[in-house]
Amino acid sequence: MQLLFCVTHMFAPGNNELSVQEGEILTVTNQNVGSGWVEARNSRGNVGLVFDNSQYSYFMNKINFINAHPIFSHRFPGFSKTPNPEVYLLTKSVAKGNDKLPIYAGEVGPVWLYPQIQLDCVVADPKKGSKMYGLKSYIEYQITPNTTNRPVNHRYKHFDWLYERLVEKFACALPIPCLPDKQVTGRFEEEFIKMRMERLQGWMSRMCRHPVISNSEVLQLFLNYRDEKEWKLGKRKAEKDEFVGVKIFSTIDPELPELDPGQVEQKYEMYSQFTRSMDNSVKELLAVGHLHWKRCTGPLQKEYRQIGKAFQNLSSVFNTSAYPTLSATGKTYEEIAELVAGQPKKDLHFLMETNNEYKGLLGCFPDTIAVHKAAIDKVKEADHLVTMNKISQQDKHIMEKNLSTMSYALQAEMNHFHSNRIYDYNRLMQFYLEEQVKFYETIAEKLKKALGQYTTM
Amino acid sequence: MQLLFCVTHMFAPGNNELSVQEGEILTVTNQNVGSGWVEARNSRGNVGLVFDNSQYSYFMNKINFINAHPIFSHRFPGFSKTPNPEVYLLTKSVAKGNDKLPIYAGEVGPVWLYPQIQLDCVVADPKKGSKMYGLKSYIEYQITPNTTNRPVNHRYKHFDWLYERLVEKFACALPIPCLPDKQVTGRFEEEFIKMRMERLQGWMSRMCRHPVISNSEVLQLFLNYRDEKEWKLGKRKAEKDEFVGVKIFSTIDPELPELDPGQVEQKYEMYSQFTRSMDNSVKELLAVGHLHWKRCTGPLQKEYRQIGKAFQNLSSVFNTSAYPTLSATGKTYEEIAELVAGQPKKDLHFLMETNNEYKGLLGCFPDTIAVHKAAIDKVKEADHLVTMNKISQQDKHIMEKNLSTMSYALQAEMNHFHSNRIYDYNRLMQFYLEEQVKFYETIAEKLKKALGQYTTM
Repeated sequence: MQLLFCVTHMFAPGNNELSVQEGEILTVTNQNVGSGWVEARNSRGNVGLVFDNSQYSYFMNKINFINAHPIFSHRFPGFSKTPNPEVYLLTKSVAKGNDKLPIYAGEVGPVWLYPQIQLDCVVADPKKGSKMYGLKSYIEYQITPNTTNRPVNHRYKHFDWLYERLVEKFACALPIPCLPDKQVTGRFEEEFIKMRMERLQGWMSRMCRHPVISNSEVLQLFLNYRDEKEWKLGKRKAEKDEFVGVKIFSTIDPELPELDPGQVEQKYEMYSQFTRSMDNSVKELLAVGHLHWKRCTGPLQKEYRQIGKAFQNLSSVFNTSAYPTLSATGKTYEEIAELVAGQPKKDLHFLMETNNEYKGLLGCFPDTIAVHKAAIDKVKEADHLVTMNKISQQDKHIMEKNLSTMSYALQAEMNHFHSNRIYDYNRLMQFYLEEQVKFYETIAEKLKKALGQYTTM
Repeated sequence: MQLLFCVTHMFAPGNNELSVQEGEILTVTNQNVGSGWVEARNSRGNVGLVFDNSQYSYFMNKINFINAHPIFSHRFPGFSKTPNPEVYLLTKSVAKGNDKLPIYAGEVGPVWLYPQIQLDCVVADPKKGSKMYGLKSYIEYQITPNTTNRPVNHRYKHFDWLYERLVEKFACALPIPCLPDKQVTGRFEEEFIKMRMERLQGWMSRMCRHPVISNSEVLQLFLNYRDEKEWKLGKRKAEKDEFVGVKIFSTIDPELPELDPGQVEQKYEMYSQFTRSMDNSVKELLAVGHLHWKRCTGPLQKEYRQIGKAFQNLSSVFNTSAYPTLSATGKTYEEIAELVAGQPKKDLHFLMETNNEYKGLLGCFPDTIAVHKAAIDKVKEADHLVTMNKISQQDKHIMEKNLSTMSYALQAEMNHFHSNRIYDYNRLMQFYLEEQVKFYETIAEKLKKALGQYTTM
């Protein structure tokens, strides 16, 4: 049996893993290893375990997802081609009952239905576990939702599974940010585990805060499953979900007057421009933040150390007539060097993480917006199709009504994005400035103390 | 008439000046231009004015001074060979009356006789003047001593003349720091005039603060002359002064018990090591100060500007839902950029100037100390010379007594240096730290204000 692996990550060999390259052809020697792993032989005759992507349901629903996971990089998950909204545009029926996603008129415009208590969860307590008689090691995280206060355990691959489900189901309407980067080497190092946990926490909180996602069966399963059996059954059910891709729009029910295609296009243009501009600004801030981080922990730290050292050396030359104050000034500048180098971790870190998260989110919008644009273009063709007798006048009306629904979904989503953004950036800037004030005040305080040691002559 | 010019400065042609190179042979075409200037023709046939070094009395008293004027550079005025202290060592008589330079036992050891009121002066009010029917332009400074409160005017070349006299007369015993660099191009620019005046002020104050120099006839003439006639007469007298070079020691009268050569050598070793170490430390501080200055006015300013710009750009993207606070934060960081770039002029400038002054002073010590070392070596030879009947036992005693006097002079001078140094560095460090505290407090204050514009959510 031959498999063409569609691998974008270069897997580094670890445990019994076989190193594979993108597009490499492998012969499967044992398909029954389990957990998505197979034993395979490469063209050079090396045998080892490889993870079989083909067991994933990536290619369902005619949406081909690029298997790229980095949340904080330039790559985002995308549709290899824009999903065709035609299937939905001509759909007449709307989902009923629990599956319905209503949209209301809020203060800022169309909004999703927000739950009375906002769902959230705590990702904590990473523990090392092993499987397959110690052949595979992994890190398991404890996730405790605020609704049940009962922790569940999940490995990174479960988060990844959740991510895949959310993309399948919602990505045509909602930006689903990527998970933090899947790292193969060094993934058991404390620093890495801490950072990944922090980022998984950020990702989970964002999913929980979303009124549509938080209410989805798959997220509820992820947070609330009671035992392995419930988890496995739930997984199977989620993987068979039919309301995925563009079909999600048929579950959306805006209780608002229908928009004409002109209004829809206007909104589309506005959001398109906004997300592009914000993406640029966020990237600009990240670039200068990165530069500043490097400056603080590199040349600036070195320079303050040198200033401190120079004062101390001069002080030791003056030692014959004792000059401890100058030496204390020198030590103060050495302390300032460490403050300067340590500061980015205290404030810039949060600024970078938040902006990285937004970069991830903004990276999803072009795809979401492209589906929207494709629908607008289809509706523009409708007149022509009616003339050609390809569709009826009534079909055209249905298409326009459905386009209006799509627009309300986009508006509700943008309004959700804006309210999050205002909250996030307000919190971020306050935190950043508070830390910056503390930083400069601490330096001033230290220098004042050094100054106090001199006697006025 | 041919003159071999001993020029170490490359004179840039200005007004009617001829560009000359070190060692170049010129033919004098008119010797009667005046003020030390001659008209000359170079080997390429160009005719112009040149300044005739040979009219200076540099080469008197067998001490050849290198004609280098920069106070704040690595070059210092030095003896091309160490003056021979032998003439003095065998001198029996000591100057009497007004010419006597007494040394007393102070708290810190041997000290010069300090005047009851410390002389000082204010260098101010630079004015442009011209001579030779406008052919030569110059800047004239007003110098007002605290003793008479009556201003006198001097050009840079008069300071230079004073410097030459002080070197001739005192440099074997006292470090005479160079004048600020003689600059030919751009010397009428405001910034340059301001800086030169500041440095001439520093130099004059240091000369005035010195108990021996302040009392010298030549400095008194410079500060107190009443008219052109008195100035010219005084100049002529000063240039004919015989108590110059090593002869200065014969005017020194320590009212203290004679030191044996072993004690003298011990002191010499100590001072020699101290001045070398301090010279290194001062140079280290200057180097890191220079680096820090460049960083603050270069990459750091740029970076804070970029941070400010990035916040403002993000704010303008958010404009749809109005976010003026973020824009204000951005402007704050732009202001911080200017504070950072402007700070070196406020604090580092004084630190650099003071250390540059000390670098200049310390650069004089090796020469002063070398005269001392030569005397120690001569006295070490004395026993041998007595055996060889070249000198008498009594001569040897005179030599040892005179060496003791030289040592007291060096000790008094080092103690003067130390007391200045303690005062100067104490003042400097207090000023520097005060400005640094203000700087960091101002930034913290600005950021606090920016923070205050955010509302807690």
